[in-house]
Amino acid sequence: MKKMDYQNVKGTQDYLPNAEVVRRNIRQILEEVFIQYGCQPLETPILNYTELLASKYGGGAEILEEMYTLTDRGERELALRYDLTIPFAKVVAMNPALKMPFKRYEIGKVFRDGPIKKGRFREFTQCDVDIVGVDSQVAEAELMMMALDVFNKLELKVTIQYNNRKLLTGMLEVFGIEVEKMNKVVLILDKLEKVGLAAVISELSEQGLSRSTIHLINQFLTDENNTSFSYFESYSNQNEKVRQGLNELKELESYLEFLKVEKLCVFNPFLARGLEIYTGTIYEIFLTDQSIKSSIGSGGRYDNAIGGLIGTNESFSTVGISFGLDVIYTAIRTSTEEMKENPYVDYYIIPLGTQKESLLVANYLRKQGYKVEYEMSNKKLGKALEKANKEKIRYVIIIGENEVENNQFKIKDMFTGDEKIVSYQYRD
Amino acid sequence: MKKMDYQNVKGTQDYLPNAEVVRRNIRQILEEVFIQYGCQPLETPILNYTELLASKYGGGAEILEEMYTLTDRGERELALRYDLTIPFAKVVAMNPALKMPFKRYEIGKVFRDGPIKKGRFREFTQCDVDIVGVDSQVAEAELMMMALDVFNKLELKVTIQYNNRKLLTGMLEVFGIEVEKMNKVVLILDKLEKVGLAAVISELSEQGLSRSTIHLINQFLTDENNTSFSYFESYSNQNEKVRQGLNELKELESYLEFLKVEKLCVFNPFLARGLEIYTGTIYEIFLTDQSIKSSIGSGGRYDNAIGGLIGTNESFSTVGISFGLDVIYTAIRTSTEEMKENPYVDYYIIPLGTQKESLLVANYLRKQGYKVEYEMSNKKLGKALEKANKEKIRYVIIIGENEVENNQFKIKDMFTGDEKIVSYQYRD
Repeated sequence: MKKMDYQNVKGTQDYLPNAEVVRRNIRQILEEVFIQYGCQPLETPILNYTELLASKYGGGAEILEEMYTLTDRGERELALRYDLTIPFAKVVAMNPALKMPFKRYEIGKVFRDGPIKKGRFREFTQCDVDIVGVDSQVAEAELMMMALDVFNKLELKVTIQYNNRKLLTGMLEVFGIEVEKMNKVVLILDKLEKVGLAAVISELSEQGLSRSTIHLINQFLTDENNTSFSYFESYSNQNEKVRQGLNELKELESYLEFLKVEKLCVFNPFLARGLEIYTGTIYEIFLTDQSIKSSIGSGGRYDNAIGGLIGTNESFSTVGISFGLDVIYTAIRTSTEEMKENPYVDYYIIPLGTQKESLLVANYLRKQGYKVEYEMSNKKLGKALEKANKEKIRYVIIIGENEVENNQFKIKDMFTGDEKIVSYQYRD
Repeated sequence: MKKMDYQNVKGTQDYLPNAEVVRRNIRQILEEVFIQYGCQPLETPILNYTELLASKYGGGAEILEEMYTLTDRGERELALRYDLTIPFAKVVAMNPALKMPFKRYEIGKVFRDGPIKKGRFREFTQCDVDIVGVDSQVAEAELMMMALDVFNKLELKVTIQYNNRKLLTGMLEVFGIEVEKMNKVVLILDKLEKVGLAAVISELSEQGLSRSTIHLINQFLTDENNTSFSYFESYSNQNEKVRQGLNELKELESYLEFLKVEKLCVFNPFLARGLEIYTGTIYEIFLTDQSIKSSIGSGGRYDNAIGGLIGTNESFSTVGISFGLDVIYTAIRTSTEEMKENPYVDYYIIPLGTQKESLLVANYLRKQGYKVEYEMSNKKLGKALEKANKEKIRYVIIIGENEVENNQFKIKDMFTGDEKIVSYQYRD
């Protein structure tokens, strides 16, 4: 037989049990917290009509280039979803009877045929919560609290940076940036922390901005008061967006202070988030120890996207947050020590010529809710104990013919060496 | 704005919260039981090289026609997985250091561009358990017990039909069926229950079998003893496959009797399972009340597939079982009454001009592990209580300014009308 060359497609990977056990735990914690915040599960298909995913209210030009497309046997033009937001908007559009506010979560695979970096894959899992139908900043406050709860349960210390797109755009308008250059400038500012002030100013100059505009931006970036709301007060008379953005920020901050999480949530006036869809509050979550530089969750308010997708003037105030399972997994893996005791096996049963009787014991223990590994491959006692040691299984049950005759079985604690005899009736 | 025509791709669907809550519960029960049987989670990619999925050890010609294929930006020929078995085999092939026996489960989406019937989709979820590295029938017994445990927890009454491919093929050899016609004949016999004896005999005649062969098959099909092992004893001297198959069946039955589940597991000598890969025991699980005709789970032993895929002569004894999430969901939905109390909301908080203070109460209850829905859209009391009624939320917490002043909140039981005052310190 010809040996085939096995490999995974570039940008995809298998998660073997050691990894998947950790990922499953993360997923469970996320789901639990989502549900505690009144969010309900939704499941949407991976396959979608290309026309839907290519909507201008979708992920934007960059993401569209990275879309996997295919044609089915019925000659339909299909694509694999690249996020969970458009499928969510589609569900809202298709189900006008949905009660508002509609709060849903979805955990699922998404696909992007883009460049691969460390920790960035072409097939990966997103965990999204979105709320449609709430105008007030209380929605943002709830999602930020939820994120803090999630990472608290995951035992990861995080800081949430937040900003408001109206404030940022308004300020840039005041400085003289024209509409058509706005998005490009926002993207350049977004890199401030990564590339530094000089690089940002030089990139801005390449955009053909006027000297005075660049001067004003430079002042803004370097003013030591630029993270206090009072800095923006004077501008709020000059520009309606600044005024609105500032009001929303103050409302949000009052909730955060009330909930006593204002120290974990930091206002960053240059946080921009690349995507055009955001219309108000935006936030990104970072590990406080910065052991991973990129954000491990992010989101914001996008009030126009669903209405735009549906093609109606009805308002669909929407706030969302997205957690990256893969990056959280990387963060957890680098922060936890090696496993001390196997959480997946409570008892490992080793039959010594007593396969059938041992099945009864396995059955008996599983009925009580225990996780039981039953040795099926006829390993000798030595080999089996070796396996228990390697896999850090604590309790081993050895069942020989003696045990069956005496209606008992023996539990061995592999950590302490203690043994315990338990009575058990093999036949009624 | 132009209104877009929203629809799902043919053969796919959304699961709204009402449905997804049930599906999530099924998934959780499956996972819990899988883990109790010592199986560990594995996650493999949906995107695969077409070459791998098209292997002759894969799903067979029919499934290959139904494979979704695409080309990525790097001109790679890719396909969406149509089952979880080949990805499992690939993992075994790529990780020679895996300890045997290797027991894994995977729950994930698979894709088939095939005909759509009621309850059959083009994008659907499979839940598979496979064990590689166990020769003995104890592996089959464990998987069958596991299936019984699963459906017991799901409160569905099931019967498992089982057979052995060696026995069936051996018998047909004895009757004079040639190798090249074997699979076709097996497929025809598989339809016995569905189409009846006359139709089967007529289809067999069309295959150009000799009269004496058809006569012998007819005798086999109609012999009232054909479900007792003794019927096959005489044939086991004439044909080695019959002998081996019979021995395996007896071994399996002895386990099932010992575990006292022999009444739930019924030997059916004509059960065939379409797929060519099976080499020994096969089984299908049916609802005992037959409210759904097709099987709701199935599997068997396929000892040659992984070795064949890897291209080695090493033996990889493998037994698997697959549960269909969608068909189980259909079975549960038709068998359960309407929900009595919303399991997703423990408390629904209605702020009356007390948005911030109410957030504190939400926070306090969530910290204790409760699921809390917090009314964010400023509904008036009447509307909010209406929502609670409609969604069958039992406990509602109303927080007005009076409550805040008196450091308390009120819990209303919507089912009985009782009210309870709870003390709560809003400020420290």
